[in-house]
Amino acid sequence: MEAARVDFDRLRGFIALAFAAVGMRERDAEAIAQLMAEADLQGSDGHGSIRLAPYLKRIRAGGVNLNPEIRVVRERSGMALIHGDNGMGHLVMKRAAELAIAKARDAGVAWVGAQWSNHAGPASLYARMALENGMIGLYFAVGNANHLPPWGGLEMLLSTNPVAVAVPAGDEPPIVLDMATTVAAYGKVKAKAAKGESMPEGWMIDREGKPLTDPKRASEGFLLPIGGYKGYGLALVVGLLAGTLNGAAMGKDVIDFNADAASPTNTGQAIVAIDPSAFGEIDEFKAAVDQVIRDLRASERMPGVDRIRVPGERSHEIAVRQRSEGIAIAPSLMQTLDGLAKELRIAPLRTH
Amino acid sequence: MEAARVDFDRLRGFIALAFAAVGMRERDAEAIAQLMAEADLQGSDGHGSIRLAPYLKRIRAGGVNLNPEIRVVRERSGMALIHGDNGMGHLVMKRAAELAIAKARDAGVAWVGAQWSNHAGPASLYARMALENGMIGLYFAVGNANHLPPWGGLEMLLSTNPVAVAVPAGDEPPIVLDMATTVAAYGKVKAKAAKGESMPEGWMIDREGKPLTDPKRASEGFLLPIGGYKGYGLALVVGLLAGTLNGAAMGKDVIDFNADAASPTNTGQAIVAIDPSAFGEIDEFKAAVDQVIRDLRASERMPGVDRIRVPGERSHEIAVRQRSEGIAIAPSLMQTLDGLAKELRIAPLRTH
Repeated sequence: MEAARVDFDRLRGFIALAFAAVGMRERDAEAIAQLMAEADLQGSDGHGSIRLAPYLKRIRAGGVNLNPEIRVVRERSGMALIHGDNGMGHLVMKRAAELAIAKARDAGVAWVGAQWSNHAGPASLYARMALENGMIGLYFAVGNANHLPPWGGLEMLLSTNPVAVAVPAGDEPPIVLDMATTVAAYGKVKAKAAKGESMPEGWMIDREGKPLTDPKRASEGFLLPIGGYKGYGLALVVGLLAGTLNGAAMGKDVIDFNADAASPTNTGQAIVAIDPSAFGEIDEFKAAVDQVIRDLRASERMPGVDRIRVPGERSHEIAVRQRSEGIAIAPSLMQTLDGLAKELRIAPLRTH
Repeated sequence: MEAARVDFDRLRGFIALAFAAVGMRERDAEAIAQLMAEADLQGSDGHGSIRLAPYLKRIRAGGVNLNPEIRVVRERSGMALIHGDNGMGHLVMKRAAELAIAKARDAGVAWVGAQWSNHAGPASLYARMALENGMIGLYFAVGNANHLPPWGGLEMLLSTNPVAVAVPAGDEPPIVLDMATTVAAYGKVKAKAAKGESMPEGWMIDREGKPLTDPKRASEGFLLPIGGYKGYGLALVVGLLAGTLNGAAMGKDVIDFNADAASPTNTGQAIVAIDPSAFGEIDEFKAAVDQVIRDLRASERMPGVDRIRVPGERSHEIAVRQRSEGIAIAPSLMQTLDGLAKELRIAPLRTH
């Protein structure tokens, strides 16, 4: 069966209605729906409307505060710490990004951390917010389930702690890197299992350190960090910067949000906004970024490679295409969303 | 032949004398010698006194300014941009780190970039400077030779652009991550060639994308980024943050400092100082970092693994040992240093 194509506004409206139906404030429901639909739009399928069901489950289990008082608890000219009051992560990190951008306008660079936040969708969404203001955005997060042991270890004490960096360009689309610190994100393993495919060697290892390629045996093994011990180190320091520094969960304290829908996760995230106009002429900076992109793109390719890409290029193209053709919703996801609509007594997405 | 053991102060004194002999200001020579000896002390062999000969070559070729006027050219509360005036990178980045730390004391977080700098030794040296002030340090740099093509490409447009992160702990030694964005740093390839050993698969590929394991054929291939396209993306954004943002060289503009000793490199680096006491109680933060370290260290190990380490543990141990036993100087390096001493008419290191 083919994926259905759904208009951005329709998808956004449906998600907002679903959240409103479980008691969320209308303004909050709309803000989250906008971000979740944007995730789908850019092809971050694992972080868009596919998360609606688990988010609703969590809300109903009392694991998320529907009326959070999101507030700044610490502030200096170059930083702030936000208390998310266990609200939805999207609301917390949208506020954090807006504050970082506002502060960077004066300070040149501003770092805003969050504690008592929750899963906020794809890292790139928040790094991207800086772009609209001509700024560079960095984003760090503690993942919401531990899938990574320390290098040489067997206990999953670390998450795939992602990093995103968004850099504005001039005429070219911006550079947007969004990466987990593991070779594969856990969502990719789940996708392989769903398709009945095996995983390439290098994604996971078993408890003896041997390659694990059967995604159905994923629970018997671990994700591999990028570059071996380097990726382990990266996951660790990202966790310290996004979690420990903010007084948020890290390591043993991380709640597995797949297994536990009721406990507050105290998720930690951080966003950094950098204003290039504090460093020099903004137009010169953007032109220099364009030049780097063009040099990379025009460079000689390996046999069989049809194109050199820069990070974010693919998701930019997907967003442009899906903006006009509609967002692809896989049949299984559509079925889930139909079920939710029935349960919540709202109009189903397909007729929305 | 065994490595000689040289006392830290003796090594530092010798390096300072060598720089003074080619006309460097005494204070500058001492500052650089201190940092280079620290690099050797912590086992960063590729970045310590082994660099003395190429640094001197560059100075004599007029590629480095011996009387730089290192100055702040842009400044806001949360950032500054330093013009290195083509001075030795150690001087530029020491100044940058000191400024970042001073600014972070007020702003909470401060980002200081540098343009017209030069190779500054191991990334960790500058990230570490934050530790003495109870702060977290991040360091980004554009490497001084391009060894990495974009993913799928054949042209070496990117360097191994390193990242360092130093996080203070309480009773435990600090966490210090210092990593190139490639699986192996180029220095490791050179070391394999010198020993006549072959490289493991995964370090380099040839122009067809096939594994390259003979280090003598290194010039026919490329380093591989960590995590494939992820490491490529990371090298790219580190280069944009450390280079392009600062108006420094990046991509095609990077001067290969092995091939060209005379042209100014316009090296770009950046340092970020984060004061954890702006985010909460410093003692609580340090205790939380200790806890993470202990949880990792005490966790179950894979068969055959004798110990779980955290980043920086090994170099911390090497530094402690070499502080008391002396710094190991390999016979071939000692020979080079003897030659330099003769040439510069200074007392040789072995009798220093």
